[in-house]
Amino acid sequence: MIDLAAIEEARRRIAPHIRKTPTLRYGQLKDGDAGGPDVTLKLELLQAAGSFKARGAMNRLLTLTEAERARGIVTASGGNHGLAIARSAKVLGAGAKIFLPSNVVPDKVAKLKQWGAEVEIVGDIWDDANAAALAHAERTGATYAHPFSDPVVVAGQGTLGLDILDDMPEVDVILVAIGGGGLISGLATAVKARRPATRIIGIEPVGSPTLHACLEAGRLVALDTLSTRVATMSCRLTDQAIFETVRRHVDEIALVSDAEMESAARSLWFEFGVAADLSGAASVALLQAGRMRFAPGTRVCAIVCGAGADGLA
Amino acid sequence: MIDLAAIEEARRRIAPHIRKTPTLRYGQLKDGDAGGPDVTLKLELLQAAGSFKARGAMNRLLTLTEAERARGIVTASGGNHGLAIARSAKVLGAGAKIFLPSNVVPDKVAKLKQWGAEVEIVGDIWDDANAAALAHAERTGATYAHPFSDPVVVAGQGTLGLDILDDMPEVDVILVAIGGGGLISGLATAVKARRPATRIIGIEPVGSPTLHACLEAGRLVALDTLSTRVATMSCRLTDQAIFETVRRHVDEIALVSDAEMESAARSLWFEFGVAADLSGAASVALLQAGRMRFAPGTRVCAIVCGAGADGLA
Repeated sequence: MIDLAAIEEARRRIAPHIRKTPTLRYGQLKDGDAGGPDVTLKLELLQAAGSFKARGAMNRLLTLTEAERARGIVTASGGNHGLAIARSAKVLGAGAKIFLPSNVVPDKVAKLKQWGAEVEIVGDIWDDANAAALAHAERTGATYAHPFSDPVVVAGQGTLGLDILDDMPEVDVILVAIGGGGLISGLATAVKARRPATRIIGIEPVGSPTLHACLEAGRLVALDTLSTRVATMSCRLTDQAIFETVRRHVDEIALVSDAEMESAARSLWFEFGVAADLSGAASVALLQAGRMRFAPGTRVCAIVCGAGADGLA
Repeated sequence: MIDLAAIEEARRRIAPHIRKTPTLRYGQLKDGDAGGPDVTLKLELLQAAGSFKARGAMNRLLTLTEAERARGIVTASGGNHGLAIARSAKVLGAGAKIFLPSNVVPDKVAKLKQWGAEVEIVGDIWDDANAAALAHAERTGATYAHPFSDPVVVAGQGTLGLDILDDMPEVDVILVAIGGGGLISGLATAVKARRPATRIIGIEPVGSPTLHACLEAGRLVALDTLSTRVATMSCRLTDQAIFETVRRHVDEIALVSDAEMESAARSLWFEFGVAADLSGAASVALLQAGRMRFAPGTRVCAIVCGAGADGLA
């Protein structure tokens, strides 16, 4: 498992290549601001390549030797991790190869190419593309970058926690969307080491309660079925180190429905001109669902973690 | 003409109803950050109702008497001014009636209705809708709110200049898109009174050089034809007070093409996850066009003044 020192080191390492994203008070809403918690949006969707994933990807690339970097990096992801790897590789002059399943949206392929990545479609589901990525790494000596279970990637994502403590030194609660668990495990490690009183609340889709199920079972479990349409939050199985970090540092995991995320994304666009993808809207979805109560004045940071056109319908 | 005192008063008045919008360093770009000016984006597209227009509209509504507010407010605008008037009226519990020409996009009508406005389609062009708005005001006693020539509206828009001086006390240059000229005349009045060394550069579309033409002629002139597709920057004729303020306080007016704004909007979306409308992208279009040179290190504020899906193609 990673520790605060690894995250602080990652932060120094990636600082020249990462944006300091702004915050925005969640208020001035159409139907008024009725008491309740004092919510601040952390606009991490404005990060380079459109999400927090730029942090972990950049940390991964920067910890390779020059010889490794020269052999390139490979992953399987049509989502934000793939974009972040492609972007980090371009910034550092390395080659990136991204494997994708056939159901990828054409827009993502175009974006990956804009970042200079080589793209190859293999199979119908992510596992097929991932197997091809692993085989490619084996064959060529390129470095394979896992989207969430790599400790170097997790340490990079954890830097978002340190940035939030700079933005909001007295933050009471941080709301974090969960895909595989890389962001929340890094972020919770950092925040609990620096400010243990801050509550960390993870958010999963009802249709992909990956870590919720592990916590209930008290051990790592794989989900039988996934039924969310939010690809960036859809994950059958996380890994042991992430599960243990989440069990230790995360206070609670809440579930939101796809419809609640869709509604939150529309609301972020209508109220704020913020174009979040559905995972980016998950934290606001939890607030708007009203199932979780916060005392008036509680300082809540809702991370808007990724950009997308999901709310612009 | 308005003065700094009017803008400061507007700022105190509207403060409870307006967002403090964040800034974001313009950097970490796909093709590297090659020296040049030190650019900061002012993300005013995240303002309530999606643009700076919320400032002027709110100042207009707040300076009405209760009796006037009870008779409602009326305007003709399918753009950001209409949305801002509708939003301000909703916040203050007043009625808003918005007249629109038949070529309005359905999306705008839906948004106006979400803000609680009554919407009426009249005629084929803005002048028809505006005539209907004026007649409605005459008939019902509702207050007519002109999109840019009303000094109370201009004073409200000027508050953005004061906010920018708070964000960037040493700003050297501010880039401002021009439609009718309400924003730039208010903003330039405020900034030149507080920090005369700051250069104010206005931006107009090649196809609607409203104030550029007035400055060249040395007097108020109407354009014969408009050939921009950027509705929020399309204006045949500004008014005398705005022309005089711009002549006095604005250092330069630069022209950008529609294609340059389209390219800048796409770039803001790709590089930053910022969804700007074409007028919101005008300041970045000027920077990217490279026709205007700034010494390395010049502190430039590029206002991204309105939200839209124009760059998401």
